[in-house]
Amino acid sequence: MSLDLLIKKIKETNNPTVAGLDPDLQKLPEFIKAAAFKEYGVGLEGAAESLFAFNKGLIDALYDIVPAVKPQCAYYEKYGWQGMRALSKTIAYAKEKGMFVITDGKRNDIGTTMEAYASAHLGAVKIGGSEVEPFAADALTVNGYLGTDGIAPLIKICQAKDKGIFVLVKTSNPSSGELQDKLLDGGTPVYEYMGSLCEKWGESLSGTYGYSGVGAVVGATYPEQLTELREKLPHTFFLVPGYGAQGGGAADVAGGFDQNGIGAVINASRSIMYAYKKEGCDEKDYAAAARREAIRMRDDITAHIS
Amino acid sequence: MSLDLLIKKIKETNNPTVAGLDPDLQKLPEFIKAAAFKEYGVGLEGAAESLFAFNKGLIDALYDIVPAVKPQCAYYEKYGWQGMRALSKTIAYAKEKGMFVITDGKRNDIGTTMEAYASAHLGAVKIGGSEVEPFAADALTVNGYLGTDGIAPLIKICQAKDKGIFVLVKTSNPSSGELQDKLLDGGTPVYEYMGSLCEKWGESLSGTYGYSGVGAVVGATYPEQLTELREKLPHTFFLVPGYGAQGGGAADVAGGFDQNGIGAVINASRSIMYAYKKEGCDEKDYAAAARREAIRMRDDITAHIS
Repeated sequence: MSLDLLIKKIKETNNPTVAGLDPDLQKLPEFIKAAAFKEYGVGLEGAAESLFAFNKGLIDALYDIVPAVKPQCAYYEKYGWQGMRALSKTIAYAKEKGMFVITDGKRNDIGTTMEAYASAHLGAVKIGGSEVEPFAADALTVNGYLGTDGIAPLIKICQAKDKGIFVLVKTSNPSSGELQDKLLDGGTPVYEYMGSLCEKWGESLSGTYGYSGVGAVVGATYPEQLTELREKLPHTFFLVPGYGAQGGGAADVAGGFDQNGIGAVINASRSIMYAYKKEGCDEKDYAAAARREAIRMRDDITAHIS
Repeated sequence: MSLDLLIKKIKETNNPTVAGLDPDLQKLPEFIKAAAFKEYGVGLEGAAESLFAFNKGLIDALYDIVPAVKPQCAYYEKYGWQGMRALSKTIAYAKEKGMFVITDGKRNDIGTTMEAYASAHLGAVKIGGSEVEPFAADALTVNGYLGTDGIAPLIKICQAKDKGIFVLVKTSNPSSGELQDKLLDGGTPVYEYMGSLCEKWGESLSGTYGYSGVGAVVGATYPEQLTELREKLPHTFFLVPGYGAQGGGAADVAGGFDQNGIGAVINASRSIMYAYKKEGCDEKDYAAAARREAIRMRDDITAHIS
């Protein structure tokens, strides 16, 4: 019912990072695509199986040093239901290897509809007399624009199944301020108000490290807000995108951590997945290159945490 | 690049409504589930095929009198990738029958990730040398919390493929006001500001009826705001949930239409899908009951439009 499991894995690996699994077919090693297209055809199934094979290699290279993966739904939906099957297989494989899985879906809706998303991604569905877990991630990113009606169904499942959520608070993109930085009557910016809702929503999901099961997404590209929110939201764990390809550095994310060196997990996707391109090594070594970059990132970030 | 196709179909059928396809396995007629479970097994596939069989019956009963359907992603994701396959089949079948399809996914992200969602639901993906359309709906609901970075990738695809989007502005749920009704510095509520962004985002997607390709979701349960927004957002077409099961009536939605009787499409899901339960008729007549309710709803709403 909290994010304890994630924090525990971060402590065990001494690595507060998460590897984003956002596979882009055009950037995948040719040998992976060739094999998948040969076996499954040059179509949605072959594309989707390429994504899974790529992810499997990354997970094998990372699972003992990186505590978590964050598959981004969009890159799987892009290849239809076949892509969603690749997402499902990716989650199952990462969990089999002991990794914490955050599905980045930014889902949002209300009532029974939000319950359906919660069951799909974190819970179980009843079919006939038995229960099946469709995607079975450990945590899900969500969008809080619809208010408590959109979050309450998740809280129920987080309680029942020991799962967590991350609510978008201050996103890493350049235009995030269009709405999120707007000042409300009284002077509080929208993102800070959303953060205060996270504290409230998390009250019934407290964890042993002081952080609840309701986390927040706060971008590495806004270090001042990250530091400020760390102080204002003492029970809200942060998922921090924007390190690496989006321009955030280790000094930028340091403010997301508390005096005990916890409180945040830093995501990098492209810089890890496509490290082999940056290195210029053989594409067959893409997984080893990803591991080298994950280690570099871990050391870079831990050096900046007190 | 606009919502002209939807408006044209509304005019042809003289029916400004959309049937929500949010199938809940527990509420489906037993004969449908029995047949699907027998053929596909009592598991995710059997459940998913039940949803599709149910939808097919509804579409057959509605396609000549209702211009559009709105499948809600959550109810398909609930049954894993097999459910997403049922979504894909539902969209294809509705389009084959000439209906306009709005995928209710409330998707949101930024940059290349949002491009992936846009390609998945409205556009095409390149695999090998050819293009495939994974879900191929006509419009998609989206959440604008991330600002222009999350909308721009959709605009490109709406232009290229003649598609539309609906941005969440004022949702129908009780807690929608927690953020959406908050007053910004200067006195504008958040929902109105989001509406003004829709007008801006739609500028490059103008249509022949005066409405752009960027619509807004505004709930039937907030009739005052609906009327107010109709005046303030003259180029923004409204998708109006909340009629029927959520408590909105025809008088409540009347304010969403302009002086020409267009400008909105009213959604009902449960009241149409499960009309057979309310009527108490044989479950085998569920589709005929849905048609009767769709006609009642059409007549109810058109009687309230000038």
